[in-house]
Amino acid sequence: MLILMKADAPPDQVNAVMEKVREHGFRPLELPGQERTAIGVLGSNPIQLRDLVLSLPGVADAVPVSKPFKLVSREFHPQSSVVTVRDRSFGPPHFQVIAGPCSVESEAQLMAAAEAVKAAGATLLRGGAFKPRTSPYSFRGLGEAGLELLAKARDALGLPIVTEVLTTEEVPLVAGYADLLQVGARNCQNFGLLEAVGRTRKPILLKRGMSNTIEEWLLSAEYIVGQGNDDVILCERGIRTFEGFTRNTLDLGAVPVVKELSHLPVIVDPSHGSGHWWMVPPLARAAAAVGADGLLIEVHPAPDEALSDGAQSLNPVKFQHLMRELAPLLDTLGIRLG
Amino acid sequence: MLILMKADAPPDQVNAVMEKVREHGFRPLELPGQERTAIGVLGSNPIQLRDLVLSLPGVADAVPVSKPFKLVSREFHPQSSVVTVRDRSFGPPHFQVIAGPCSVESEAQLMAAAEAVKAAGATLLRGGAFKPRTSPYSFRGLGEAGLELLAKARDALGLPIVTEVLTTEEVPLVAGYADLLQVGARNCQNFGLLEAVGRTRKPILLKRGMSNTIEEWLLSAEYIVGQGNDDVILCERGIRTFEGFTRNTLDLGAVPVVKELSHLPVIVDPSHGSGHWWMVPPLARAAAAVGADGLLIEVHPAPDEALSDGAQSLNPVKFQHLMRELAPLLDTLGIRLG
Amino acid sequence: MLILMKADAPPDQVNAVMEKVREHGFRPLELPGQERTAIGVLGSNPIQLRDLVLSLPGVADAVPVSKPFKLVSREFHPQSSVVTVRDRSFGPPHFQVIAGPCSVESEAQLMAAAEAVKAAGATLLRGGAFKPRTSPYSFRGLGEAGLELLAKARDALGLPIVTEVLTTEEVPLVAGYADLLQVGARNCQNFGLLEAVGRTRKPILLKRGMSNTIEEWLLSAEYIVGQGNDDVILCERGIRTFEGFTRNTLDLGAVPVVKELSHLPVIVDPSHGSGHWWMVPPLARAAAAVGADGLLIEVHPAPDEALSDGAQSLNPVKFQHLMRELAPLLDTLGIRLG
Amino acid sequence: MLILMKADAPPDQVNAVMEKVREHGFRPLELPGQERTAIGVLGSNPIQLRDLVLSLPGVADAVPVSKPFKLVSREFHPQSSVVTVRDRSFGPPHFQVIAGPCSVESEAQLMAAAEAVKAAGATLLRGGAFKPRTSPYSFRGLGEAGLELLAKARDALGLPIVTEVLTTEEVPLVAGYADLLQVGARNCQNFGLLEAVGRTRKPILLKRGMSNTIEEWLLSAEYIVGQGNDDVILCERGIRTFEGFTRNTLDLGAVPVVKELSHLPVIVDPSHGSGHWWMVPPLARAAAAVGADGLLIEVHPAPDEALSDGAQSLNPVKFQHLMRELAPLLDTLGIRLG
Repeated sequence: MLILMKADAPPDQVNAVMEKVREHGFRPLELPGQERTAIGVLGSNPIQLRDLVLSLPGVADAVPVSKPFKLVSREFHPQSSVVTVRDRSFGPPHFQVIAGPCSVESEAQLMAAAEAVKAAGATLLRGGAFKPRTSPYSFRGLGEAGLELLAKARDALGLPIVTEVLTTEEVPLVAGYADLLQVGARNCQNFGLLEAVGRTRKPILLKRGMSNTIEEWLLSAEYIVGQGNDDVILCERGIRTFEGFTRNTLDLGAVPVVKELSHLPVIVDPSHGSGHWWMVPPLARAAAAVGADGLLIEVHPAPDEALSDGAQSLNPVKFQHLMRELAPLLDTLGIRLG
Repeated sequence: MLILMKADAPPDQVNAVMEKVREHGFRPLELPGQERTAIGVLGSNPIQLRDLVLSLPGVADAVPVSKPFKLVSREFHPQSSVVTVRDRSFGPPHFQVIAGPCSVESEAQLMAAAEAVKAAGATLLRGGAFKPRTSPYSFRGLGEAGLELLAKARDALGLPIVTEVLTTEEVPLVAGYADLLQVGARNCQNFGLLEAVGRTRKPILLKRGMSNTIEEWLLSAEYIVGQGNDDVILCERGIRTFEGFTRNTLDLGAVPVVKELSHLPVIVDPSHGSGHWWMVPPLARAAAAVGADGLLIEVHPAPDEALSDGAQSLNPVKFQHLMRELAPLLDTLGIRLG
Repeated sequence: MLILMKADAPPDQVNAVMEKVREHGFRPLELPGQERTAIGVLGSNPIQLRDLVLSLPGVADAVPVSKPFKLVSREFHPQSSVVTVRDRSFGPPHFQVIAGPCSVESEAQLMAAAEAVKAAGATLLRGGAFKPRTSPYSFRGLGEAGLELLAKARDALGLPIVTEVLTTEEVPLVAGYADLLQVGARNCQNFGLLEAVGRTRKPILLKRGMSNTIEEWLLSAEYIVGQGNDDVILCERGIRTFEGFTRNTLDLGAVPVVKELSHLPVIVDPSHGSGHWWMVPPLARAAAAVGADGLLIEVHPAPDEALSDGAQSLNPVKFQHLMRELAPLLDTLGIRLG
Repeated sequence: MLILMKADAPPDQVNAVMEKVREHGFRPLELPGQERTAIGVLGSNPIQLRDLVLSLPGVADAVPVSKPFKLVSREFHPQSSVVTVRDRSFGPPHFQVIAGPCSVESEAQLMAAAEAVKAAGATLLRGGAFKPRTSPYSFRGLGEAGLELLAKARDALGLPIVTEVLTTEEVPLVAGYADLLQVGARNCQNFGLLEAVGRTRKPILLKRGMSNTIEEWLLSAEYIVGQGNDDVILCERGIRTFEGFTRNTLDLGAVPVVKELSHLPVIVDPSHGSGHWWMVPPLARAAAAVGADGLLIEVHPAPDEALSDGAQSLNPVKFQHLMRELAPLLDTLGIRLG
C-alpha cells in the first residue's frame, strides 16, 4: 500500500502516519516527492490498514499495490487448475457444454430436454430446482422433487448434473444430488453460502454477480477455497450496465482477465448474458474463441411453454445446430469437447 | 402487457400469439398499426407470459404496462405508512437518526459510541455483530457477543438497536436481540432471507442492493410483506456506477421515486453512499431536504482505530456538529426529529 | 506515479524499467517489498509515462499518485473562486437560480416564461436556441432567431441569459448574445469546443458528461482555463447508470467532491437529473442543502405544449411554489439568493 | 406509442389525453383494462408526443412501440449493406483488418508500422493525426503533417487509410486525405459533426460512444445517412461500466444486436475495448466468431516508445502472430479476409 499525503501536510502529520503504521506491525518507508510526500507500507496484507489510515489528518489517499486474493491467484499458483466433475474435466485443453432447462418443470419436460442435449453433444445437464426470482409471484421451482428428477435423468443418460443452491440450510440437500453445485449471480457475495459450499467436497460453479468486479468475484472464490474446497469453476454471465436492449452485458473480456489473474477454469453463460435466444449461438462461438473452458446454455423442449426464461432458451433443433457449428471451431482453436 | 409483432409478421403469426394468450386465460386485443400490429393482453398479472410470448415467431417485443408489485404500491395503498420501532416512528412527519459504529468491537468502544450519539441526539443505535466482508481476510464481527453488547447498550441508554442479519439460520438469534432487523445491500435479492425475516414480527430495514433498480428493491420489499410482515423501512445507500472517487453513487432521487411508487418509509445512509466521512454532513442535509424519513450514520469513538469503515465514520465531535446543523434544517422543512 | 513489478520479475527487468524512467528525465526510486518490487517515479507530471511503462516486460501496473489537473485544483488555489455573470455572482455565499424553457419556441412562449421566472425570483434566464437531440427527427431549435429573442427578453427584464453552443463555428455567434455560454453534457469532452470557448472572454457553464468521472470533468474545465478563461462554472446534471426510472442519476455527492478538489463554483440541474417534473422540487432543495452554488431549472409556460423536455419542465405556478419553499431553506443554510 | 393512465385517473383525464393526441394529428385508441386505461397512439412517429403527454394530469407513462430510426433499420431494408472503401468491402462475407498506430508520430514510426501491418496481412492502415485527449497536457497529434504522412504511406503501400476528424471545421481537410473518415467515441453524439461528415461523399467509421445505448448509436448513424451519405460502418469499442480492470467493457453482444436491428456493417476495436495488449488477440478472435465484419487494432513498432496508448498496442511480432491465428478461424467461420 502507498499512502499519499496532502500537498500541504506538515511533517508532524507525516510522522503521525508513520507511527500509526509501525504500531500495527508494518514498516513505513517515507518517499519525499516534488508535490507531496508518499509513504510506502511494507509487510503482509497492509490493505487492512487502509480505512484506518484514511481517517488520519493530512492523508489524501491510500492506494493498494498488491492483489487482495492469494489462494486463487495465478501469481502464487502459475499452472492452470483442472477441476473434475465425475468424468468431465474443466480446464485447458478441455471444453464442456452444460445444457438444459432453466427450471425443472416435470419429468416429461426434463427428460425431453436431457435426451435432446445429450444427443446434440452436451457433456453435462443443467436444471433448476430452487429458483431465485425477482418477483415473489413468479414460478420458483419444484424443490426436492426437481432434484430427484435431475438424479433420474443423470442415471438414465449418464450426464453429470448441475443445479443451484440458494440457502445455507439447503446445502446438504442439494449437495446430496448435484455433481456440480451452482452459486448464482445474486449470491456471489452471500458469504455464508460461499463458506457453506466451501465446506462440502463438491465442485462449485460460481457465477459472477451482476455488479461484481472481477476482483470481488475472485475474492468470493477465495472464500470457498479458504474452506478447503479447491474445486471452483467460475462462470461469466453478464454484468449490469446502462444498455437495456440485452438483459445483461456479457463481459467476454473477463475471460482473459481471469486467466491472467487466476488459475481457476472459467466458463460462459450466453443465455443470461443476452436474454435473447437468437444471440446465444454467436456469443457461444465468441466464448470459445476468447478462451473460455466451456458454456452454460439454456435449452427447453418448447421455449414457448417454459415457466421461466423462455425468451433466452434454445429449442432442441437450434441447440443441435449450434453444437454442429461449434465442432469445427473448437478443432481450429485446438480445444477438445468433453 | 403489450405485445409488439414484427413489421413483416403475417396474420397467422398474429393469430397464433392471440391463441396462446387465450390458452393461458388472458384476453388478447388486436391493435392494428401503420407499421406493425400490437396485441394488448388484458387480465391479472399478464407479465408472467412475457418470456413465453417472446419465444413465439413474429414477436418483436412484449412491454409491461403495469407495476409488478402490489402490497407495497402506493397505487393500491395511497396513504403513507408509519413503521414503529419501540417508541420511534418512521414515516412523515417523523425523522429518525440511527447512528453508531460499523462494527461492535468491544464493550468500551460500543458504550463510548452509544453515549456520544445519544448525547448528540441520535434516536436509535446501530452496530454490526455479523459483518459481510468482500475479503475473507477482513474482520467479520463479534457474532452473538456483539449482540449482547448491543442489548446492554440499549438497556443502559434506552435507544432501540438496529443490527444486520446475514443468513436464514441466524434470523431467530438476531431477531431475539434487534429492535430493527437490517437486511444489507448484498442480500437485497437473497430471497430466502427476505422470506425468513418476513416471518418474524420484527420491523425490517431493507437496504437497496448496489445494482438493484428501484423496482427490484420494491419487489424485494414485496417478498417481506408477502409473508405477513408489513413493517418494512427502505434504505437508500448508494448504487454502483462508473464513478470511482466515491464508494458508491448516492441516488437521492430514489427517495421521491419511492415516495411516489410506494407507501413505505425510506431513509438514507450517507456513510456507505460516499465512503468519505467529510461527505457525510452535506449528504445528510441533502437527504433531509429531499424528503427522507431518517438517516443511518456511522459514528466511531476513534475512526483511526476502527476495524472497519474508519474512512467513512464520523467521530463524536463531528457527529455532534452535524446534529446541530440538522436541527434548524428539520424545523424549516417541517419535520420532527424523533 | 508508482510502478508495480510482477512478483516474479527478475532484477534485469526492474533495471530496464528504471533506465527507461531515467531516459525520459524522471528519477526512479526502487522500493523492495515482500511480494514484489515497486518503483516510485519522481518529477513533474510522471503520468505521461504510464502507457509506455505498462508495455515493458515485468510491469504489473502503474498507479498515479497525484491529480492530473492543476489550474482548477484547490490544492494549488485554496480559496473558492467567485465567477461573475453581469451582476450575478456564482460562488459562496451566493446562490443563483437559472430558469427558463428547454428550447426557445416563439417570442410569446419565451416572454411568458421569462416574466414568470423573474416574478418568482429567478436570477438568470435560460433558453436553448441550438439544441442537441438524440434523434434527427426531433425539434432542434430556432438558431439565431432564438438568440435574438433571448437578447430581447434580457433587455426587457434585466435577467442575464444562458444558452448552449454546439459547434466551434457557432462560438462567435452565440458568444455575441450569451452572458453565460453553456457547453452541454454531450460536449463535455469535445476538446475543440472547450478550447474555442476558452478563447472567448465569456463565463462558461460546463455540464458534466453523462458518463464522465469527476476527474475527467475537471480536466475538461482545465482545457478551458488553460486557454486563459478562468470563469468556469460547473454543472452536475446526472450520470448514466443502470437505473431506468429516472432519465439520469443525479450525483449530488459530486458537489462536495468538486468543492474538495477544485476552487470552481458548481450548480445542479435537477430537471435533466431526473426527467420528471415532480422530482425537481425535492432535488432542488437537496442541491441547496448539499452545498451547490445554484440551480438550473426548466420552466415552460405550458409544459404540455413544449417542443422538448415537457415531462421535466415545471409550469409557472409550480416554479413559484418551489421558489417559496427555497427561500427559508437558503436562509437556514446561510446562503444568499442573487 | 402506448399511453398508460394512472389507476385512479377519472374519465375526463382520459378524454383530455385523447383530445390532445387528436390535436397533434394522431389517432388515439382507448384500451380499457382491469387496473387502468391505456391509450394506443396510431400514426407516424408518435414518439415525438411523449414529453408532451407525460406532462398531462393522470398519465402514468408513455411507452414507445416502434424503433425511432428508419434509414439504418433492417426492418425497412432487410438486406445487409456492403460499404466499399477504395477496393475494400465491409459487409458479409468480407472481413477487413484495419491496423496501425494510435498516433502518427513521425515518418519513420508510421512507415515501420505500415510495412509491418501490411506484411502481416492487414487490409487498411489506421493512424491518428488529430487526437482527442482527456488531459490538455497529453500529446495531441501532428495535425495536417500527420495526414500527409498517412497519404505517403498509402501511396507507398497501397493500403487505404483511416483517420479521425474532431471538429466540423476540419472535415474538409481530413476528408481530403482519408479513405475512411472516423468519428470517435467522444463525438458519437456531436450532431453537428455527424451532419458535416454526412455531407461528404466519404465512407464514415462511426464509433459507439462510451455511454451510448445501441439505439442511440444507430440514431447517430441515422444523422449521417440522413444527409445523403449511406456509407456508414459502425465500430463497437467498449462501453463504460463499473469494472475498472479493463479500460472499457467490450460489448460483443452489440454485434448480433446491430446485425438484427440494422443493415449496416459493424467492426470491433479490441484495443480500446480492453486497454491491455495481451487481451487484444483473444478479443479479436471472439469478434470474428461473434460475426463482426472486421477489426480495428492498434499496432506500434515499439509500444514502449509510443506517445499514446502504448499499453494497448501490439508490436509487429505479436500482430503477425494474431493474423496467423485468425486465418484458419476465418476459414472455419466462412469469412474472407480482404
